[in-house]
Amino acid sequence: MKAEIIAVGSELLTPDRLDTNSLFLTEELNKLGVEVVRKSVVGDNREDLLAAFRESRNRVELVIACGGLGPTEDDMTRETVAELLGRKLVRDPAILQAIEGRFRSFKREMPEINARQAMVPEGAEALDNPRGTAPGLWIEDRGHMVALLPGPPREMKPMFLEHVLPKLARRVSGVRVIHRELRVTGLGESHVEQRIAPIYKRYPDVNTTVLAAPGEVQVHLRIWSDDFGHANRILDEIVQGFDIALTDRIFSRDGSTLDEVVAQLLLLNNATISAAESCTGGLFAQRLTSIAGSSAYFLGGVVCYSNELKTAWADVPASLLQAKGAVSAEVATALADGIRHRAGSLIGVGITGIAGPGGGSDEKPVGTVHIAISTAAGVKERLVHFPGDREMIRIQASQAALDMVRIHFLYNGAQSPHGSHVAKHVGGQVGGAGGALPSPAPLKRS
Amino acid sequence: MKAEIIAVGSELLTPDRLDTNSLFLTEELNKLGVEVVRKSVVGDNREDLLAAFRESRNRVELVIACGGLGPTEDDMTRETVAELLGRKLVRDPAILQAIEGRFRSFKREMPEINARQAMVPEGAEALDNPRGTAPGLWIEDRGHMVALLPGPPREMKPMFLEHVLPKLARRVSGVRVIHRELRVTGLGESHVEQRIAPIYKRYPDVNTTVLAAPGEVQVHLRIWSDDFGHANRILDEIVQGFDIALTDRIFSRDGSTLDEVVAQLLLLNNATISAAESCTGGLFAQRLTSIAGSSAYFLGGVVCYSNELKTAWADVPASLLQAKGAVSAEVATALADGIRHRAGSLIGVGITGIAGPGGGSDEKPVGTVHIAISTAAGVKERLVHFPGDREMIRIQASQAALDMVRIHFLYNGAQSPHGSHVAKHVGGQVGGAGGALPSPAPLKRS
Repeated sequence: MKAEIIAVGSELLTPDRLDTNSLFLTEELNKLGVEVVRKSVVGDNREDLLAAFRESRNRVELVIACGGLGPTEDDMTRETVAELLGRKLVRDPAILQAIEGRFRSFKREMPEINARQAMVPEGAEALDNPRGTAPGLWIEDRGHMVALLPGPPREMKPMFLEHVLPKLARRVSGVRVIHRELRVTGLGESHVEQRIAPIYKRYPDVNTTVLAAPGEVQVHLRIWSDDFGHANRILDEIVQGFDIALTDRIFSRDGSTLDEVVAQLLLLNNATISAAESCTGGLFAQRLTSIAGSSAYFLGGVVCYSNELKTAWADVPASLLQAKGAVSAEVATALADGIRHRAGSLIGVGITGIAGPGGGSDEKPVGTVHIAISTAAGVKERLVHFPGDREMIRIQASQAALDMVRIHFLYNGAQSPHGSHVAKHVGGQVGGAGGALPSPAPLKRS
Repeated sequence: MKAEIIAVGSELLTPDRLDTNSLFLTEELNKLGVEVVRKSVVGDNREDLLAAFRESRNRVELVIACGGLGPTEDDMTRETVAELLGRKLVRDPAILQAIEGRFRSFKREMPEINARQAMVPEGAEALDNPRGTAPGLWIEDRGHMVALLPGPPREMKPMFLEHVLPKLARRVSGVRVIHRELRVTGLGESHVEQRIAPIYKRYPDVNTTVLAAPGEVQVHLRIWSDDFGHANRILDEIVQGFDIALTDRIFSRDGSTLDEVVAQLLLLNNATISAAESCTGGLFAQRLTSIAGSSAYFLGGVVCYSNELKTAWADVPASLLQAKGAVSAEVATALADGIRHRAGSLIGVGITGIAGPGGGSDEKPVGTVHIAISTAAGVKERLVHFPGDREMIRIQASQAALDMVRIHFLYNGAQSPHGSHVAKHVGGQVGGAGGALPSPAPLKRS
């Protein structure tokens, strides 16, 4: 089955707003095996709406529209669709009662204007909206289906899942989208593409998308099939190939972020962490503490911009700062060691670099970052040169630091949520910008 | 003039990608006085493309399409538009030469496939693309204009500005969009709406949009006019009304973020700042250091989750933590005082609260946050209850802390980039969740 999505609302034609409802709808429709072949954004204007609905209905079986169901004169989706289908608008007493009841529950009287929302095209089915006043509408017309949903995502999404999805599920064929997502860090988009293209090109029926995001690359695999066992075997085969091509650069196979992956590793290994940050300015700490329950593993962090505070807060010797400069392997190492001791954590992370736009030199250009990770077994330090602006450099630096923590657990026989995958990689080849840590004793809380 | 925007690309019909080019294009077109009446997303499919271009051309004078100009067989925008307009595709030797030159500059040979990109519909004008291989195309046809631009924003945007904009500027009438943006914090969307609606409703010709963003509300005013003096006077009048209705809750009149506004205030007043954060986990420090040149005012910060580190790193007395609990006005105050002394900064900020999802109680539910700001003149402390999930609570808490710094400067006769506005407000009424700080001596570096 093919579908089109129409987002209704003049505000969606300004530079301030994007229709994002269609991403949710596309995901849900694809899962059902319904393909979205066009998305349109139309203003609250009778003629434009008429044209959009007419064209979509001529092309596809299913039209889903969001927005334009409000109580004011601007909102005219109901009227326009009734006109297009040649149906009268009639007042639905049950909807009117529901809207009045909703206002009563807030101790308010229903404004007369809201009575408009109880008008439905003859033969349409009203879809209950407990989260707002605008009911949705479901209309079947000569083999075509039209769903009119409210614009606010918190009203639209549950209405789709509760009312529209079951109706569609009964109608669609057995074809569904089976989807895999891999996330990769430490390699650029084109390098990922170069390594995996020879693999995925052997599978023309699988839709492969490589997307660059700050500090990572996301690879989506999608296959439309009614034979889920077969489809899953194909996807497993491709992912196996990607595993070899990308080695330990894949950090996520289920959509989880690197923050979440590292938090999970810290929790599973009963490990604690602290950080002393310079150029990332708290971004590393902020990311690790963005996860619920982070107090179990994150003890504390310092942001020390000035040399004085690097000494006062992370015990970096003033003489070292003098001799090597604040952006150096030695200072990163001292930051990691110092904060680990000060916080009493099992792992200490030190980050120092030049985020720009100022402060660069020929020897140490903007984007130069030293990252160190300290444990009782020793320190591992990396020098990386990141491209991009201040924000990109900071994001990539925090990402690389998180990845060093991940790699630390990966090559130390520690607990991992992807136990079997880790086992496969231990002792295997190591590629990409990450590199392996030396192998001290596994991190365990005594 | 009316325009439609077509985003071309099957990847834009998946759940992973949104067309965002249209926001940039809408903004630029609106500035010229061109109204965007429809946006469509179409896959790389001949029939779908033909239908989309045909329909748009029948409705409006100007059609702008992005994407589908690549070298591979998937990309068929060129061919489809040529077919629709009944024009032959001819090879343009100048384009071919430019593409070959581009490859030579990378020390590579042009793959034969790229020669396709030199095919243009007869009579079309090629638009130079120094940032990629795909040239754009400009086609005029019986009073209609079609611009075909590449999909990648970094290629599309400069091409539009350099080549398409000048062509349009010659044609459009004198009507332009004049735009103002105000940003407000410490008030919810509906409260902002309630306060300003009586004002903006008196101006039916002005399009007013109120948008909620995390921790702030953005108000956009737009007026279409060919009399800029008059339009600006009307907008000034409305903004004056908003000033009275929203008092000191407006923090930005030029699109700058609260981070930027506070950074600017710190710089102008030659002030330095430090922070001791618990629930925000480094977010406050991260935001203030996201601005270029932040080392001039941000000395350092600590993230102290555990009670032990609150004592060790910010001198919060263990007895106080014991007596009042970590989430208390007293501990927020001690954090602010302690970090100010430890960092040697003029301002110290302390943040402690419950970001959730766990850790709440009847007395101190999730969302309870104490924020303190310490200066030589004393401490100001606030208790706030924020709604939403962990991420929202942390964003709002960092936003409220930044706002307390802003308000500190606002009511202390300090230097401000909006000098005249500040003067108007000093001593005036103070509304909203912010409240005024007591008035110690102005903050100045001695």
